[in-house]
Amino acid sequence: MNVRLKEWVAIKSDSGDHTKWGEVETMLNMAAERIKKMGGKVELADAGTHQLPSGETVLLPPVILAEFAKDPKKATLCIYGHVDVQPAKMEDGWATDPFNLTEIKGNLYGRGATDNKGPVLAWLHAVESYQATKKIPVNIKLIIEGLEEVGSYGLFKLIKKRRDSFFADVDFIVISDNVWATTTPALTYGTRGSSYFFVEIEGPKLDLHSGVYGGSIQEPMADLIALLGSLLDHTGKIQVVGVSDDVTPLTEDERKLYDNISFDLEEMKNVVGVKHFLQDTKEEVLMARWRYPSLSIHGVEGAFSDPGSKTIIPRKVTGKFSIRQVPNMDPPDVERKVKEHLEQVFSTLNSPNRLKVTATVGAKPWVANLQDSQYVAGQKAVKDVFGVEPEFIREGSTIPIAQTFQEETGKSVMMLPISGHDDGEHSQNEKISRYNYIEGTKLFAAYFYELSLLH
Amino acid sequence: MNVRLKEWVAIKSDSGDHTKWGEVETMLNMAAERIKKMGGKVELADAGTHQLPSGETVLLPPVILAEFAKDPKKATLCIYGHVDVQPAKMEDGWATDPFNLTEIKGNLYGRGATDNKGPVLAWLHAVESYQATKKIPVNIKLIIEGLEEVGSYGLFKLIKKRRDSFFADVDFIVISDNVWATTTPALTYGTRGSSYFFVEIEGPKLDLHSGVYGGSIQEPMADLIALLGSLLDHTGKIQVVGVSDDVTPLTEDERKLYDNISFDLEEMKNVVGVKHFLQDTKEEVLMARWRYPSLSIHGVEGAFSDPGSKTIIPRKVTGKFSIRQVPNMDPPDVERKVKEHLEQVFSTLNSPNRLKVTATVGAKPWVANLQDSQYVAGQKAVKDVFGVEPEFIREGSTIPIAQTFQEETGKSVMMLPISGHDDGEHSQNEKISRYNYIEGTKLFAAYFYELSLLH
Repeated sequence: MNVRLKEWVAIKSDSGDHTKWGEVETMLNMAAERIKKMGGKVELADAGTHQLPSGETVLLPPVILAEFAKDPKKATLCIYGHVDVQPAKMEDGWATDPFNLTEIKGNLYGRGATDNKGPVLAWLHAVESYQATKKIPVNIKLIIEGLEEVGSYGLFKLIKKRRDSFFADVDFIVISDNVWATTTPALTYGTRGSSYFFVEIEGPKLDLHSGVYGGSIQEPMADLIALLGSLLDHTGKIQVVGVSDDVTPLTEDERKLYDNISFDLEEMKNVVGVKHFLQDTKEEVLMARWRYPSLSIHGVEGAFSDPGSKTIIPRKVTGKFSIRQVPNMDPPDVERKVKEHLEQVFSTLNSPNRLKVTATVGAKPWVANLQDSQYVAGQKAVKDVFGVEPEFIREGSTIPIAQTFQEETGKSVMMLPISGHDDGEHSQNEKISRYNYIEGTKLFAAYFYELSLLH
Repeated sequence: MNVRLKEWVAIKSDSGDHTKWGEVETMLNMAAERIKKMGGKVELADAGTHQLPSGETVLLPPVILAEFAKDPKKATLCIYGHVDVQPAKMEDGWATDPFNLTEIKGNLYGRGATDNKGPVLAWLHAVESYQATKKIPVNIKLIIEGLEEVGSYGLFKLIKKRRDSFFADVDFIVISDNVWATTTPALTYGTRGSSYFFVEIEGPKLDLHSGVYGGSIQEPMADLIALLGSLLDHTGKIQVVGVSDDVTPLTEDERKLYDNISFDLEEMKNVVGVKHFLQDTKEEVLMARWRYPSLSIHGVEGAFSDPGSKTIIPRKVTGKFSIRQVPNMDPPDVERKVKEHLEQVFSTLNSPNRLKVTATVGAKPWVANLQDSQYVAGQKAVKDVFGVEPEFIREGSTIPIAQTFQEETGKSVMMLPISGHDDGEHSQNEKISRYNYIEGTKLFAAYFYELSLLH
C-alpha cells in the first residue's frame, strides 16, 4: 500500500507559493481519480477567489466533496483531510529526497507522509478493505482540500454554503491531521484558539542618532518594553486584568484524564533543552499547554535586529505577541481587555509617542464532548486494534478546522490522529512509520465498525 | 577656491569597503601633493595592518604627517582632518551627483563637502592666505587620515608611537570635524563616551511553537523584556544603581554657557517630530544631550523582526542597548555596574535560561578646559570674523579622536567646527554653504593669529 503513498508524495503539492498551485490541482485530481475508481461520486467544488497581500486576486484550487453509495439506515461519517504540503528542499537538511518516499528502518520518509497524505490514504484504504470483503458499516463522505498549510482559503465559506446540502445528512465529522502526544494512540478533544497582537509605538519623524538625541527623547522602544513587560509575570501568569476569567474550571473527571497520559517530563526537558518548565508536574505542564491560556512575545519589528551593533533610536517599533485561548474565552473579549490594559499602562508613561494596538481576527478554541458516540467508538477502536486505552489529549496549537466544522455544521467533531509524536510534520525528515500507517488504517476500519454499532 | 573642493569631492574615497581603499590612497596622495606644493614636508606614515571580521588581514592606507618650516619662537599647532567619506549613490535620494560638487543657491552639494574635505581644504587655504602675504604666525603640523568613517584603524597606535617625535613639540591640537549646534558659530569642548551592551538570553535547544509549548516554557524573550525594562524609568532616568554617581556636578559657570545658545526648542520639536522632549526647557534638553548620561535600547536580535506575524518562541534572543557616558564616568566601571544590575534582576526571575552580558570596549567621554589659550583664541577669532560670541557646545555623540589626542599626547585639544548644523553630514545631499566655507577659512586664519598673540 505504500506504492500509492509514494505516488502521492512525489507530487510537489506545496501550497505556500500560489504560482505553483498547479501541482496542488494535479494532486487533487489524482486523489479525485482514486476515489472515483473506488466507486465514489466526486465533485470538484469551486472554492472561489482569494486576494493576495500584493492585492492580486487569484482563483483557488477546488475542494473535493465526495460520497459513496448511501444506505439511509446507516450513520453518515464525513472525513476531512488535505493533500497539500509544507515546502521541502534537500538543502534544508533532509537525509533523503523529500519527494521520493524512502523506507529506512520501518519509517517512510517524505514530505506529506504524515501531514496529511498518509492519513488520507489510510482512510481510503480502510474504505477499500471493507469494499473487498463486506459492506462498509457507515456511509462515507469526504472533504479534501489543497490549501490547509496556508490557512484553508475558501474552505470555511464553502462549508457554510454546503451546510444544508452536503453536510445536511452528516452525523459525524472526523479529522486525522494531528499527532499523538506520546507513543500511545490518542483521541484529541480540544485545541486552543489564538489572537495575535501588534503593539505599535510611533514617535519621532525619523530614526535618531542615540548619541545626538539620547537622554532628551522618550524613546518608542522604551515605551514598548514597558508595555510588553506589563503583560506577564515571571511565572508565566498573564497580567491583563480579567483575561483568564472565563477559563472553564477544571473538573475532577477532566483532571483524571491527565493521569493516564504517558508523558515523560524528564524526557521532554531533554527534548526541549530546558532545566525546568514553569510547572513542576507532568499534569501541570500538560494543562499549561492544553487547557490554560498562555501569552508569548514573538518579537519586535522596526528596531535593530541584525547581528552587530547600531546606535539608532528607532522612530517606530511594533511589538508582537499572541495569546493562546481556551474554552470559554472569547477572542473579541480578550482583544478588548488587552487593548484596555495596554492603553492604561501607556497612560502612566506620560509619553509623547502614539500607541496603536491591533489584533488579527482570533481563532476560537475548541473542545468536544467526550460523551459523543464518536469518542466512545474511537476509544473502543483503539482498544480493538492496539489493545490499550487511548490517551485523551488536546492540542495547544490552533487547528481552526475542528472548531469551524463544529460551529458551521453543528455536528459532532473528533480528531483521530494516527501520526507519531516524533513524525516531524512541517520539519525536515518528515515520516510516518510503517507501523502507524498500517495500524492506523486498521484503526480507521475498526472505527467505522464501532461507530455503526453505536448508531 | 571651490575648484579644489570640486577636485577632491570627485575622488570616491569612501572608506566603507576595504576593496576600494585604492581611492582613499589616491585622495591621500592628492592631499599630500597639495601640501608639498605649499612647501610642506610630508610623510606618508605606515599605519600598519587591520584584521577584517572575515579574519583576513589587510594593509591600511598611510596617514599623512606633515609640517611646514618651523620657527622655534612660535607656538606649534597640529591640525587633524580626514579625507575619506561615507558611501553615496544617486539612488539613495541625492538631488545631484554626490561626486560632482554642485552649487545651488549658495550651497556646495557633494559627498565630503562638509565632512571633512571642505574643512581640510579650508585649513590649507588659511595657511596659503598667510603664505601669500606675510609669515604665518604659528608653526603648522597636519595629521590627515583616510579611515575616519570606519573607525580610524591604525591611527591611535600611530599617535602613541609618535608621541615623543611628531607630537613632542606640538602645543595645541585642533579638529574641525563636527557641526555648529545652531546658526551661530561654536567651539566644541566635550563629547560623550559610549558603551554598547549585548544581553543574551539562551533557553530551549530550538525555537518552539508557541501553540504547542506556550504556557509551559519560561520564554527567553519574556526574561529579556524584564531585564531591558529594568534599565530605565519613563522619565529617561537610568535605573542601574551607581551608574550616574560619577557625573561631574554642574557648576554655575557651566550652567551659564547654556543660556547663550540660540537653540530653539519649538523648532527642534518640529524637526524631530515630537510633542515634547523628556525635559521642559532648552537648557535641560541640551544638558540631557551633552552633559548627562543616557541609555537607549536599540533592538533585539534573534526574535521575530519581519513584517507580519509568526508564532515562534525564539530560543535565544539578544537585547542591545548603549549608555552614553560623560565626565567623569569610567566605561569599565559602568560596564561592571550594568552587569551586576542585570545579574541581580535576572536572579529574581527564577529562570532556567542562561544570561550572558557582554559589552564592547567603551569609548571615554571627553571634556576640555575652557581656560586653555586655544579656547580663548577661538572665542576671539569667532568675534573677529563673525562679530558674535561663539556658542560653547558639546557633542552628545562619541568622537573618540579628541579624547584620544588628549589622552595619548597630553596636549590641549579643541574642536573648531565650520560646518552648518543643517549640512547633512553622512546623509543625502550633504553640503557646505559657500558662506561657511569662506568665513570658515577666515576663522581658521584669524585663529592662527589669535593663538600667536596668546602664546
